[in-house]
Amino acid sequence: MTMKLPPASDHVYFNDGFKCSSISITTNLNELNGDNGVISSNDSQGSNEFILTEDGRKIIPNIKTLDYAKLWLQDRKRRTFKRKILQKRLPITQWLPKYNFDDAVGDLVAGITVGLTVIPQALAYAGIAGLPAAYGLYGSFLGCFVYIFLGSCKDVPFGPSAIVALLTFQAAQGSWQKSVLLSLLCGIVELTMGIFGLGFLINFVSGPVSSGFTSAVSLIILTSQIKNILGITARGATFVEIWTQIFNNIGEARSADTILGITCIVILLIMRFFTSFRIGPEEPLLRSRTQNVINKIIWVVSTSRNAILVIGCCIMGMILRDDEGTPFKVIGYIPQGLPSFALPPIHINGNDTFTGKEETFVEMVKSMGSGLIVIPLISLMENIAICKAFGNGKPVDASQELIAIGTANIANAFVQGFPGTGALSRGAVNHASGVRTPLSNIYSGSLVIISLIFLTPYFYYIPKATLAAIIIAAVVFMVEVKVIKPMWRAKKTDLLPGLSTFLACLILPLEIGILVGVGVNILFILYHAARPKISTEILSTSAGHEYLMITPDRCLMFPSVDYVRNLVTKQSLRSNVPVVVIDASHIFGADFTAAKVIESLLKDFATRRQLLFFYNLKPSICSIFESISAEEFVVYYQEQQLDELLKERNYNPANSNLQV
Amino acid sequence: MTMKLPPASDHVYFNDGFKCSSISITTNLNELNGDNGVISSNDSQGSNEFILTEDGRKIIPNIKTLDYAKLWLQDRKRRTFKRKILQKRLPITQWLPKYNFDDAVGDLVAGITVGLTVIPQALAYAGIAGLPAAYGLYGSFLGCFVYIFLGSCKDVPFGPSAIVALLTFQAAQGSWQKSVLLSLLCGIVELTMGIFGLGFLINFVSGPVSSGFTSAVSLIILTSQIKNILGITARGATFVEIWTQIFNNIGEARSADTILGITCIVILLIMRFFTSFRIGPEEPLLRSRTQNVINKIIWVVSTSRNAILVIGCCIMGMILRDDEGTPFKVIGYIPQGLPSFALPPIHINGNDTFTGKEETFVEMVKSMGSGLIVIPLISLMENIAICKAFGNGKPVDASQELIAIGTANIANAFVQGFPGTGALSRGAVNHASGVRTPLSNIYSGSLVIISLIFLTPYFYYIPKATLAAIIIAAVVFMVEVKVIKPMWRAKKTDLLPGLSTFLACLILPLEIGILVGVGVNILFILYHAARPKISTEILSTSAGHEYLMITPDRCLMFPSVDYVRNLVTKQSLRSNVPVVVIDASHIFGADFTAAKVIESLLKDFATRRQLLFFYNLKPSICSIFESISAEEFVVYYQEQQLDELLKERNYNPANSNLQV
Repeated sequence: MTMKLPPASDHVYFNDGFKCSSISITTNLNELNGDNGVISSNDSQGSNEFILTEDGRKIIPNIKTLDYAKLWLQDRKRRTFKRKILQKRLPITQWLPKYNFDDAVGDLVAGITVGLTVIPQALAYAGIAGLPAAYGLYGSFLGCFVYIFLGSCKDVPFGPSAIVALLTFQAAQGSWQKSVLLSLLCGIVELTMGIFGLGFLINFVSGPVSSGFTSAVSLIILTSQIKNILGITARGATFVEIWTQIFNNIGEARSADTILGITCIVILLIMRFFTSFRIGPEEPLLRSRTQNVINKIIWVVSTSRNAILVIGCCIMGMILRDDEGTPFKVIGYIPQGLPSFALPPIHINGNDTFTGKEETFVEMVKSMGSGLIVIPLISLMENIAICKAFGNGKPVDASQELIAIGTANIANAFVQGFPGTGALSRGAVNHASGVRTPLSNIYSGSLVIISLIFLTPYFYYIPKATLAAIIIAAVVFMVEVKVIKPMWRAKKTDLLPGLSTFLACLILPLEIGILVGVGVNILFILYHAARPKISTEILSTSAGHEYLMITPDRCLMFPSVDYVRNLVTKQSLRSNVPVVVIDASHIFGADFTAAKVIESLLKDFATRRQLLFFYNLKPSICSIFESISAEEFVVYYQEQQLDELLKERNYNPANSNLQV
Repeated sequence: MTMKLPPASDHVYFNDGFKCSSISITTNLNELNGDNGVISSNDSQGSNEFILTEDGRKIIPNIKTLDYAKLWLQDRKRRTFKRKILQKRLPITQWLPKYNFDDAVGDLVAGITVGLTVIPQALAYAGIAGLPAAYGLYGSFLGCFVYIFLGSCKDVPFGPSAIVALLTFQAAQGSWQKSVLLSLLCGIVELTMGIFGLGFLINFVSGPVSSGFTSAVSLIILTSQIKNILGITARGATFVEIWTQIFNNIGEARSADTILGITCIVILLIMRFFTSFRIGPEEPLLRSRTQNVINKIIWVVSTSRNAILVIGCCIMGMILRDDEGTPFKVIGYIPQGLPSFALPPIHINGNDTFTGKEETFVEMVKSMGSGLIVIPLISLMENIAICKAFGNGKPVDASQELIAIGTANIANAFVQGFPGTGALSRGAVNHASGVRTPLSNIYSGSLVIISLIFLTPYFYYIPKATLAAIIIAAVVFMVEVKVIKPMWRAKKTDLLPGLSTFLACLILPLEIGILVGVGVNILFILYHAARPKISTEILSTSAGHEYLMITPDRCLMFPSVDYVRNLVTKQSLRSNVPVVVIDASHIFGADFTAAKVIESLLKDFATRRQLLFFYNLKPSICSIFESISAEEFVVYYQEQQLDELLKERNYNPANSNLQV
């Protein structure tokens, strides 16, 4: 089999590391073969065993550690003062100089559409967080403006999200002071994580865990809103408790609220269906002008369904009011005007708590607990989900996104906002409206400001059931039932972490639930590391000597080494072949524990006079094993070398007697 | 390159699973190629790409799940009633029928030598556990007898160990009732773990973590004994506190105890040196008979150093006593006779506790906390360490050892013993004395019984400082300083888990300390899973088309998939080559998250009209990826197929324009 390698082309090597940035080392193939003592043949009889001669790890060790550090430092220094780093950390500098008319139109349309969505959602999500509706609006403008400068993803509309609102409620227990402080602290945590490049942590939340979490959150939010639809009071800690209470109190359901709520849900679902409805021919180019205009109107109306419904219901509320108030519960008084720009509260007076007990800063922080870590991580998860969903494969800079949403949350805390992030549902609206840059945030933020200054008196009449309907119609599609089928088809075992997360989140506090899911999933990785697949076969050398070839399929790390040792010993004894070769082609990593086990394997083989060779062991692994082996340690890299090795040892299968 | 495969030899396949037992499926190569649709060529032009056709995972999926389960059940049934399982679960049935005179002599000598060591050690280790000396002896005979029947390792002398005694002290706080109950409960946990095959858990304790733990334990025990040597009282919770107190109270040191203790340590160290001292020529066969006899005497005397020293000091104590007692602290009264055979205490009366408060069973168990899990695991660790150290590579049956030490501990609890295991130091003595079977335990156990019946009145005069010296002389060699150098040479990063464990165990309670160490080490595995090495090179097909070959070196699991996606995208864009091939030769595992990412990669490549192929993707992985990919998903298995694929697609490098 022939593989032609280009004689002197450039090759790029990757150094691993938690950061995605990599040091590129360029070399040519001839240097490479010479420097590393790796045998590679380019002739027509060549083997492809060395297809990986360009593996980063083979080259890096030959650069002395000191040089390596120096290189890194120089690289760092050079990069720090380059424009690239500015563009990376202040993404507005990338797109603003190239901003054109098309961009402006796209952003304006998208910004206004998102603005019409964010106002009702903000009012509703404040309810999920257990706060008066006004706080939702407070958290929906300043952060948007910050995101314009720091955000790296055009589709992200910063603001309150349903998931983060629920987490806020669990951490701040519906106290506005704690919610605002939480926004500050989460912002600081996010910013710090961003600076230290800890965004990679969300990689440990797998697809199934993320689906299970989102589905559970949606169900919990749905549950919490059902009582608003029914107009009843149901208090309970867990999912099951709330449902029990709802069923017990269903008799107290207020018919006006229930009818209004259900009607709203039905209207929203119908209008949602129309977002993808088009009249005329399938192919857009074949449609007439009128058809196109009608289609555009259908799309705008159906996309602005939340705003339209709220306005409609609000007007209805104003019309239907009498001396006893409105026939359904309304959100009530919202103070007019912008919130004051002030430091976030760092203690709570006795008058402001349910118990009448004063709370100090330390007590406030303590009561937030693990929310301070989980909210930033989940915020990032939701935010990155938008970037990935609409980014066309553009790599996502998680660190920069952390810096952006962190700073936005810190800013929000000064105008009494609660924690926010890029909300997935509005991200989809933003993208569908043709957003071009993060500048669209300026229009949605401005709309929120306008509504705070001029519209709050009218918001009084917005029915609670309508807001609940908006939430329900949004989160019902977040229950990811559809993902079960492909998961079942692709890998059935992956249903387990997904299902554990889902159930754990329903039963336990959300932050514990997701940790359980991640923990279950990490067990998969550990199992994988602990139980390599090992295949064995009896082969013959060209001189006709039989030997046992044992091939482990992955790295040798401490959880697996004993297992591998036992299998190798068992097979070596069972096969009764005096020559055993371990094919290390797939071993790309090893540790000290593995080296110790290899040492004792070599000792065992020497004791029973069985020969043990290593085939195709990477030089980096070789140096780990060699360093502590007292016995002879033999590695060969080409098939035919085995015969030479056997000849050197005067090997004769007839004479060889295993000393078992 | 040619690889001759034997035409119809037997091949053995491994199924993975947490248990070491494997279902062997034997097939011949012809069947294999036919059944699995895997291309493999045996002619002289063949490639070695399918060296792994015998990989278990390729074959297992073709057996229908139902058949597979049936096979397993049949296998199970067949095995349950076979003698092999009896031999496995009652190892005495393996060796007793073959027991001969040589075995008897070997076991007798080893048993008596170990017996002479265990008596002083038992008295001393009871002190570490915070109990009167008698309890050490109580825990040193019945368990030995049980181990004879159930133990699978000849070198294990069951009884108290320093490490487990310290853990017992931390869990039972020096209450004999709790210590005895702990022995029962730990025994039950061990037995259960053994039955359910959970012995694999200790594989997650790597070499460095184990070294760090043992070293820290040794230092803590050393510290606790220093005060006995000095004859002062020093109470403190942590390592640092105890040392501070020792330095503060050093003025109160009793000179008699100090002089005696230090002298004992010096004598023990000198005698220890003589265990490896031989007179005459290097080669044993060249020595004269007299030389051999002298050597034997030197060895016996130096190995029995603990017993000799205790007897000597005991006699000294009896001689030196006057009306005021002895000049040094002695261990005092030990009740004569065997302990009563009774149920372990399940509650403590108020009279028996320090606080005077009665403790119920639940309170007792609660106060033991995580000790109930950690003691069994550490006991197993120490026990397995003996089996491995002296087993000549014989695979160790961790489950059977758990069953053996579990049952032994349960038995011990009925004669007021505290938890024990195979103690490493006595295991070495046992091995060096030429032990042949676990029957040696009968002699050491009998010696303990004899000493309980006849010798306890004389034990009164054993000086505490002598016992402290015995402990110190034993544990000082357990501080594994020597391991640092090979660890540094082999893999420097492995020092980190070792050092973290060491420090965490010194600062925190031991069970938390080791969990910290294991946690740090698991981070290594996760990092490894999250950051595969990826090499890229530009190759040419035989028709001369350039393509970019990207080779990840390990499985695609959720923590790494985003990293891989970003790198593949980055390289594909940077290289500007319109054909990209992912070489999946080293990808032996993937999950749903990976499948989703491959799906989006395919979509991205289709969008920018770059071609993406997979080379040598294992069929099992292929089925995972295929199941959810909407886009065309192309895998090829032989180099020359790439040209065919390109021809099919009318590929022309001149026409191809990347839509980036």
